Amino acid sequence: MVTLAVDAMGGDIGPEVTIAGAALAIKRYPDMRLVFYGLADRVKPVLVRYPELAQCTFHASESATAMDEKPSQALRNGRGRSSMWHAIEAVKAGTADACVSAGNTGALMAMSYFCLRMMEEAERPGIAGVWPTLQGESIVLDIGATIGADANQLVTLAVMGAGMFRALYHVERPTVGLLNVGVEEVKGLEQIRQAGQILRQIDLAGLEYKGFVEGNDLGKGTVDVVVTEGFVGNIALKAAEGTARQMAQTLSEAMRSSVFSRLGYLFSRGAFRKLRDKMDPGRVNGGVLLGLNGVVIKSHGGTDAEGFASALRVGYEMVKNQLLDKIIADLRHFRANLLDLQADSEETE
Amino acid sequence: MVTLAVDAMGGDIGPEVTIAGAALAIKRYPDMRLVFYGLADRVKPVLVRYPELAQCTFHASESATAMDEKPSQALRNGRGRSSMWHAIEAVKAGTADACVSAGNTGALMAMSYFCLRMMEEAERPGIAGVWPTLQGESIVLDIGATIGADANQLVTLAVMGAGMFRALYHVERPTVGLLNVGVEEVKGLEQIRQAGQILRQIDLAGLEYKGFVEGNDLGKGTVDVVVTEGFVGNIALKAAEGTARQMAQTLSEAMRSSVFSRLGYLFSRGAFRKLRDKMDPGRVNGGVLLGLNGVVIKSHGGTDAEGFASALRVGYEMVKNQLLDKIIADLRHFRANLLDLQADSEETE
Repeated sequence: MVTLAVDAMGGDIGPEVTIAGAALAIKRYPDMRLVFYGLADRVKPVLVRYPELAQCTFHASESATAMDEKPSQALRNGRGRSSMWHAIEAVKAGTADACVSAGNTGALMAMSYFCLRMMEEAERPGIAGVWPTLQGESIVLDIGATIGADANQLVTLAVMGAGMFRALYHVERPTVGLLNVGVEEVKGLEQIRQAGQILRQIDLAGLEYKGFVEGNDLGKGTVDVVVTEGFVGNIALKAAEGTARQMAQTLSEAMRSSVFSRLGYLFSRGAFRKLRDKMDPGRVNGGVLLGLNGVVIKSHGGTDAEGFASALRVGYEMVKNQLLDKIIADLRHFRANLLDLQADSEETE
Repeated sequence: MVTLAVDAMGGDIGPEVTIAGAALAIKRYPDMRLVFYGLADRVKPVLVRYPELAQCTFHASESATAMDEKPSQALRNGRGRSSMWHAIEAVKAGTADACVSAGNTGALMAMSYFCLRMMEEAERPGIAGVWPTLQGESIVLDIGATIGADANQLVTLAVMGAGMFRALYHVERPTVGLLNVGVEEVKGLEQIRQAGQILRQIDLAGLEYKGFVEGNDLGKGTVDVVVTEGFVGNIALKAAEGTARQMAQTLSEAMRSSVFSRLGYLFSRGAFRKLRDKMDPGRVNGGVLLGLNGVVIKSHGGTDAEGFASALRVGYEMVKNQLLDKIIADLRHFRANLLDLQADSEETE
């Protein structure tokens, strides 16, 4: 049995989307249990429309965290009161295995950090996103939890990202690359080079290090897991999202520009929709907050029911495949080896 | 009269493309003069095919810089010998107003830097690229000349980028944004905040500062000039290029997946090609090396004749609109105001 705590109020629309998404997910995973948190007068009228959710629990919350609240404000206002807080707290209390919210990212991070705390092995949080590629999907992290990262923090992200890839796609040893610039003799930042050396020297069971990758490798799917610090990850993600949307818009304008292309559009609408949904990294749903003592899934705020169901799937798979235990084991292995590495290099000095 | 020095050997293909592109450009700009540099046995047989280039000059070089040479190696091997070096040297000697090459970027930067030196006012070089947007085109810089930038260096990039936009698109006061992450209370890096303060306080005649922009604003065309340091700029550019190519490829596969969509494709081929050429930042041609005592244009190595003609157009417009003089004037104005600003803040302390 996998129990997910759902912040039913999160997202641009709220219960109408989250509960519809939950209804889709519960049919797909018979051993999934859902616990909803939200405002009673908003959630209950929607919940009764889905008989398939009759077995699920609902807990009323006093407030809902607004999409535009600042994290500190959301924490002050929502602590002990909002549906987002309650869903996270359920993970801490052990009444749920993971929490899923389509709410305000900054607030979700702040509350999760405050309530669940960092796992001792991880030091700092990271947000991992699923990126559509020509090969299928990759995981990219950090896409904005923190700015800047030293070599050890990049390796920690690599270990957590590989753990997530393994849990989601059941690949024993995902390939990992460090995002860098390819200009010759501008070999990138010192901390990225160092992280590469560590990943090469410590042979981690949970991942296969492939070296540096460049920005265009993201879409190619050259590796399973692309590691970078949060500033670059956030800009890269949004630049790619922007390009995907801009192409979709330009295409639909171009298709209306002549009788021929209009006719072409009628015949190929299905292919277009599929393309748009597949290629926009912003539409692949279910970012994961990694490094915490608990699994927290961030769904896209503007998602639809199908997208929210896919965020629930991510949470379900993370729990089912014991993501946290595996990450902790891998991080401990990394830290132990790092000490050996340091001892070795001191001896040879 | 605008005289451009052309490295006829540059690019994946060489003279067949560069000279065909030159033939296109010379018809469009009657006051353009071209001077070609290259290996005589490669260039001459191509040149004779274009009677419209009969008035242009050709100078034989002993060598051509390979696309995969490392910058230091290219400089050692090519100094005083290669067509790329000769084209740059023509700018230094004043026999040409600007230089255009589709050759190896690192080599072009190294040779330009070595031969032309930095303009006193700029301190460091930057590479500016033209980015396709929903509104038209923006300029993004630095896309990989140097890694990292402090506040003054970011402002210098802003001034140079605005100067380039003005020269290319004849807009008196281009809008400028600083690339940043939008997560609340993670307001980005200190140097970006400082650069924003300087741009707000010093009212520069050559640009209108609009504040921070995010990765998805690149494709939207929210501002005319987007400023960032070279690491982030390079990753963002390549992430967007990758997404554009990946979408084009997925689309063409999707269009072949059913009889209906195949039929649709036949009717809308033209629209697709237009889309692909328009939306891929890698296809918009003519990056500019800024900050040097001379105008150097980097054309995409894989470009075709039309693309090389557009790189020649960029060089032509830069010279015609006295880009360097304007940039120098703006940078001097910025530095003078910066001193005032510092004096003011010291007084109030």
